[in-house]
Amino acid sequence: MSDKVRLAPVGLGRWARVLANGVKRGDVIDFVSCYSRDEKKRDVFCEEYGISRSASTYEELLADDEVEGIIVTTPNDTHRPLIIQALEAGKAVYTDKPIAHTLEDGVAIAAAVEATGRPFAVGHSARRLAGSRLMKQWIDDGTLGEVSLAEANFSNERGLELTPNDWRFYNDKAPGGTMIQLGVHHADNLNYLLGDAKAVSAHARTLYSDAEVPTAVMAIVEFESGALGYIGCGWASPGIYTINLQGTKQNLRYDLDFTHWDEGDKADEYSSLESQGFGESERTPVELGRTDMFREQLEEFALSIRGEAKIEVGAREAVRALAVVKASIVSSERKGLAVDLEEVIDAAGAGAVVG
Amino acid sequence: MSDKVRLAPVGLGRWARVLANGVKRGDVIDFVSCYSRDEKKRDVFCEEYGISRSASTYEELLADDEVEGIIVTTPNDTHRPLIIQALEAGKAVYTDKPIAHTLEDGVAIAAAVEATGRPFAVGHSARRLAGSRLMKQWIDDGTLGEVSLAEANFSNERGLELTPNDWRFYNDKAPGGTMIQLGVHHADNLNYLLGDAKAVSAHARTLYSDAEVPTAVMAIVEFESGALGYIGCGWASPGIYTINLQGTKQNLRYDLDFTHWDEGDKADEYSSLESQGFGESERTPVELGRTDMFREQLEEFALSIRGEAKIEVGAREAVRALAVVKASIVSSERKGLAVDLEEVIDAAGAGAVVG
Repeated sequence: MSDKVRLAPVGLGRWARVLANGVKRGDVIDFVSCYSRDEKKRDVFCEEYGISRSASTYEELLADDEVEGIIVTTPNDTHRPLIIQALEAGKAVYTDKPIAHTLEDGVAIAAAVEATGRPFAVGHSARRLAGSRLMKQWIDDGTLGEVSLAEANFSNERGLELTPNDWRFYNDKAPGGTMIQLGVHHADNLNYLLGDAKAVSAHARTLYSDAEVPTAVMAIVEFESGALGYIGCGWASPGIYTINLQGTKQNLRYDLDFTHWDEGDKADEYSSLESQGFGESERTPVELGRTDMFREQLEEFALSIRGEAKIEVGAREAVRALAVVKASIVSSERKGLAVDLEEVIDAAGAGAVVG
Repeated sequence: MSDKVRLAPVGLGRWARVLANGVKRGDVIDFVSCYSRDEKKRDVFCEEYGISRSASTYEELLADDEVEGIIVTTPNDTHRPLIIQALEAGKAVYTDKPIAHTLEDGVAIAAAVEATGRPFAVGHSARRLAGSRLMKQWIDDGTLGEVSLAEANFSNERGLELTPNDWRFYNDKAPGGTMIQLGVHHADNLNYLLGDAKAVSAHARTLYSDAEVPTAVMAIVEFESGALGYIGCGWASPGIYTINLQGTKQNLRYDLDFTHWDEGDKADEYSSLESQGFGESERTPVELGRTDMFREQLEEFALSIRGEAKIEVGAREAVRALAVVKASIVSSERKGLAVDLEEVIDAAGAGAVVG
């Protein structure tokens, strides 16, 4: 048996391939099985990634003693039952973000993680980009000074193309629309950079789309630190991924061409970070290192199973990012009135688990 | 007597000079007198700009039949009495932005403009920058498509330097802090670009400053069109002046180095506008013409006295920009709850005047 960590992907679509490609760039993980309800998909995936076997039922996969952990890339609304069943079967679980489509499901998953004590990681990969890491470093080492305002935008054209055939069209599958699909990335980024968010005021609209879900959302996020954050996310324009930080010593502007997002090891090449000090009219490019966000988060997860790594984004972090989304939905229904994260987390059933 | 339009500046500080320099670049306006309470300031200003006489009292200035109109650059909280007295004395009035420090005063001024029928202009010059003009053109001619999200930021370091000796320190002089001093520019810009704002949700904080006023404000502006706007304004970082528009055909990013703002005819040289279409990872610079915002608005005002120009930013536009500021203050007190502009305008006493 290989000394590598033995994992199995569950859900074998586009994103499973993005993650599998990240795994292939490293030497830590071995895919020993895989599962999809669709036999054809299983066969194609096994062939494509040289996996020796697949499970014909989810129960069969979870009964496979060789499988130490699973990688979940199924639709968000399937996360809860799949993840809890796996945790209870003793498997470690990595799931793509968001942790779930509803905060209730996220909190239930967090409770199962707590109860089973199994390793659990959520793929909020954006915080691992070289730009995010450097912004965090400049905040922590004082280079940026104190941050007062932080602005983030993640937008693309999806709403203009969305049809009723897409699950993202529907409120019961993707509640919050752009905010849960795109904004949740920045919710985690800002929590990572500025510390815990406290409350959210938001407005959501469905613009230039027939979708049920909101396709244009703006949220103001109040942080425990006193800083104010802003998240804008739209589905009716060319793609944008930016983070601007205003510090008492410097400003930073981060810009990512996320058409290269799926190539986890290329994203940094197509991003830029610029600093601006006092009296400086020109922004100065800041050199960025290279990361490999998908590979790194999967290897961290894998090694955590062996006790050789600590998971950076677990249930707590993922629930708090999703709570920003949920608070933005509730706030929009309340005409922008600030909604405390603790309120929505408690209402979802588990202040104690993730507080 | 000169055929030029005969105006007199009132308040002879730094900003009067910025405007006087704009006037000197043209051949439309003649300063025939000027007024400040301080005799020394009057003498120095007359000498500096070759003005033959000054008035030793405001009443004397307003009794001067040669003076067709005045240019007000006194502190915001003095606008109301000075402007109304001038209008009632038959003078045309140009005032720097904001129209007043409170919406009540702004509405009272609007009522006096209505009652006297005298020409009245407010110096919301930013919409005259080449970048603003081109953004507006691209919206009007369909190049941008439909705008869903519009983000604007105007920030600088003033709060880090603010002392109790500065009137901007105090709530009664500068209510709203950064929002009335900086954000009001973007309130007018967004009203200009997107049509009338309808409601505002905002959060205001005093960060890294001893000032009474808020030094960090974020506001979400709902527009009648359905679009969402965002205004961020801080006083605790290096300077920023940006406008980002997300359209269904293009995105636009405008960036101004406002250290050159005071040189009205140089601002465009130190600004950039970049467009981004679908599938474009790189932004493309858009060539900007050259404007001279202070000169142009003053000449427009002057010529309007002779019936040869139409004032672009009058009482209605200025009150609606200030109403965005006022609504942001009220909303912040109400924890982000959206405040309708009509509510604050009506409460200030004059829905009828500016509705």
